[in-house]
Amino acid sequence: MKYPLTPRLQLIQHLAERKAGLGKVVLLVMDGLGGMASGPGGKTELESAAAPNLARLAKSGSLGVHDPISPGFTPGSGLAHLALFGYDPLVYEIGRGVLALFGARCFEPNVMQAGEVAARVNFCTVEEKNGGLIVTDRRAGRIKDGPAAGLVELLNEQVKVAGVSFRFFQSKEHRAVLHLSGAGWSGLMGDTDPQATGVAPLAPAPLPEAANDPAAKRTAAVVAEIIAQARAALKDKHPANFILTRGFDTFKALPHFPEITGMRAACVAAYPDYRGVARLLGMDVVAADEELAGGGKPVRAEVSIESEFAAVERVWNDYDFFFIHIKKTDSYGEDGNFDAKVKVIENVDAQLPRLEKLGPAILCVTGDHSTPAAMKRHSFHPVPVLFAGKLVIPDEQTSFGERAAARGGHGRVNGADLLPLMMGYGDRLAKHGA
Amino acid sequence: MKYPLTPRLQLIQHLAERKAGLGKVVLLVMDGLGGMASGPGGKTELESAAAPNLARLAKSGSLGVHDPISPGFTPGSGLAHLALFGYDPLVYEIGRGVLALFGARCFEPNVMQAGEVAARVNFCTVEEKNGGLIVTDRRAGRIKDGPAAGLVELLNEQVKVAGVSFRFFQSKEHRAVLHLSGAGWSGLMGDTDPQATGVAPLAPAPLPEAANDPAAKRTAAVVAEIIAQARAALKDKHPANFILTRGFDTFKALPHFPEITGMRAACVAAYPDYRGVARLLGMDVVAADEELAGGGKPVRAEVSIESEFAAVERVWNDYDFFFIHIKKTDSYGEDGNFDAKVKVIENVDAQLPRLEKLGPAILCVTGDHSTPAAMKRHSFHPVPVLFAGKLVIPDEQTSFGERAAARGGHGRVNGADLLPLMMGYGDRLAKHGA
Repeated sequence: MKYPLTPRLQLIQHLAERKAGLGKVVLLVMDGLGGMASGPGGKTELESAAAPNLARLAKSGSLGVHDPISPGFTPGSGLAHLALFGYDPLVYEIGRGVLALFGARCFEPNVMQAGEVAARVNFCTVEEKNGGLIVTDRRAGRIKDGPAAGLVELLNEQVKVAGVSFRFFQSKEHRAVLHLSGAGWSGLMGDTDPQATGVAPLAPAPLPEAANDPAAKRTAAVVAEIIAQARAALKDKHPANFILTRGFDTFKALPHFPEITGMRAACVAAYPDYRGVARLLGMDVVAADEELAGGGKPVRAEVSIESEFAAVERVWNDYDFFFIHIKKTDSYGEDGNFDAKVKVIENVDAQLPRLEKLGPAILCVTGDHSTPAAMKRHSFHPVPVLFAGKLVIPDEQTSFGERAAARGGHGRVNGADLLPLMMGYGDRLAKHGA
Repeated sequence: MKYPLTPRLQLIQHLAERKAGLGKVVLLVMDGLGGMASGPGGKTELESAAAPNLARLAKSGSLGVHDPISPGFTPGSGLAHLALFGYDPLVYEIGRGVLALFGARCFEPNVMQAGEVAARVNFCTVEEKNGGLIVTDRRAGRIKDGPAAGLVELLNEQVKVAGVSFRFFQSKEHRAVLHLSGAGWSGLMGDTDPQATGVAPLAPAPLPEAANDPAAKRTAAVVAEIIAQARAALKDKHPANFILTRGFDTFKALPHFPEITGMRAACVAAYPDYRGVARLLGMDVVAADEELAGGGKPVRAEVSIESEFAAVERVWNDYDFFFIHIKKTDSYGEDGNFDAKVKVIENVDAQLPRLEKLGPAILCVTGDHSTPAAMKRHSFHPVPVLFAGKLVIPDEQTSFGERAAARGGHGRVNGADLLPLMMGYGDRLAKHGA
């Protein structure tokens, strides 16, 4: 169970230069960067930001826009990141459970074997009513990382099913992951999360198309037992007294980015899902200072934008490709908080000279998709992209924004074109053909 | 052994108008046209050229850029020309030996049969050392066409292997081609050219994957005998006393351009490789005045830019599609000679009124790829393209250059889109579908 390479990735693998001393490639992703004006005649978030460094790079560099899937389609973040890394998002898929597990275990080797199953877990609150359970808060008040870690530990101590190997891992806040390891599982399982409060959790059950599949029936039975024991373990605990599961998913290995591109690849991200995508593709996740504060193995901690750039500086000599992910542009976009999204862009802008000082051959600044604060969700709008580097032919644009990008020298490309473009600018792809 | 048509070419074949009296299509290719500024804030080669005719056509026409393969990838010239003619360069391939043979025999019918093998030959110099041979000059001082023709004739007279049919053909300067005709050959052969001086030539041998293939073993044995006899024939000759072989290649027929497009197609080019691509696709190669000077069958001669345009005028009534190829833009780009590349563009510009006077329905001016003098090699930068003709909707651009093209009315397209665009502008593609 492994994906073959698309022709684009085959060609990259065939042409990728693998000698030492090549230039470094930096991909800086501000999640959900693309935006909209909050009213007619207004500016977008990116156009509103006081971002002198981005403006300077726009002057010396070249802009464009990209469509993560293709024009008109709105991507999820995992899929959009696949595109940014050159993986056609209509060919390669990542399920939510597997993504969450790779994110939760991002500092561990050998996270998962092909055929194993992972599912997202929400700590939640329920109350008994008419002899059954009713969900009262699907996120248990967005429980913090600290108490959530205690609950994960409790479940791993107390929930046991004879002859079956599984384990819970902490993700972020109220989110955890369930890893069903070994053989005989199926990811063709429905959610138990009813996606609403005031109703009962759903019973674990195979998806309709797998109703008669023995592996799916076994998985449903084991998950039902796990949930029942989790209820018993958590019954009298605060702030969560139950778990909901969703996004069951069988692991299918993706071709690894470093093997395809010849680039040792580092991921610097604060959020588990983005670390998960990177790990799935064989990149190393670099821990931030906050996570290394204890001196031992990395521990989960809140990571600042400044720390992300410090982490890049720390490992600069060890890698060829740097994926830097900034989450809050998307979070504030989804909250509809235009001004806070602008502020995050400004904070990132202030860090850019640190990157420039490191001297990448090519710096590519973009988003994985658009999240206009005016829409409070991901959108289909093409995403602005900025290229700065020695081999870039400057265009006439003088600031970085949606409209300047649409008139930029790169025109409109697909998200999956960005990787070969970055490698071209990094002088890392040999000539193809006679 | 014949390639099938891609869906794009199938559609073109299905829709191509084949009635008489349709407008003529001219594709003028300046090899390696795209460039870069030689320093920050500077202009590219094309932007620097004093090219009043291109500027006038840019004003009345419409610009754009194309990616020969797709964004980020750097193509070789043969492959890039396939794209210009509408052939997806990831589907169709041309090997160096076959390309060279079609170029060398460009005025002959029936150059090669499917399954036959061709290889490039370099006349070189060697000296004996410790009982073996050492290559001293891989190009025999870039021997001229005249003396090289004599050496080719000598080899064809003196080198014979019983029961085997082969022949040498002159290409350009120190380059020749070996054609192994008939059946039982394999192109899966390593080079004997060591790509260095001061070392011994390599022995003819099958590629590792064909080590046990009887046809490859036979080919290696025959080539070894040919090389030994060539050494004997050339031993006391100047300026070359040996041959090196490379780019062995089995012929696989490509679908023919005139059959697909309904256009009688003429190639006007000064260099064998570009004539070779055209002949492989079933175009006719038009000899230049210099080559026809003797009155009999065309002889190889230096062809000027002016002569290329004169050749177009001479055969204007006999063809529907004209591929005009200018080589020196690329040569000077590879030499890093910015000013000389500019001068070639200016020379071509001066000839344009001759083309316009002929009254093509559509004139498309572009390159097969970029060769910035600043990089001294092919690059991945998208290639500027100019369309001028009655059905072109003019854009706002007023000169032809990389940046103007990036803002042009055609946006960024793939190289293989240019053929249907030219046919569209030439009113040569019927409506598709109800």
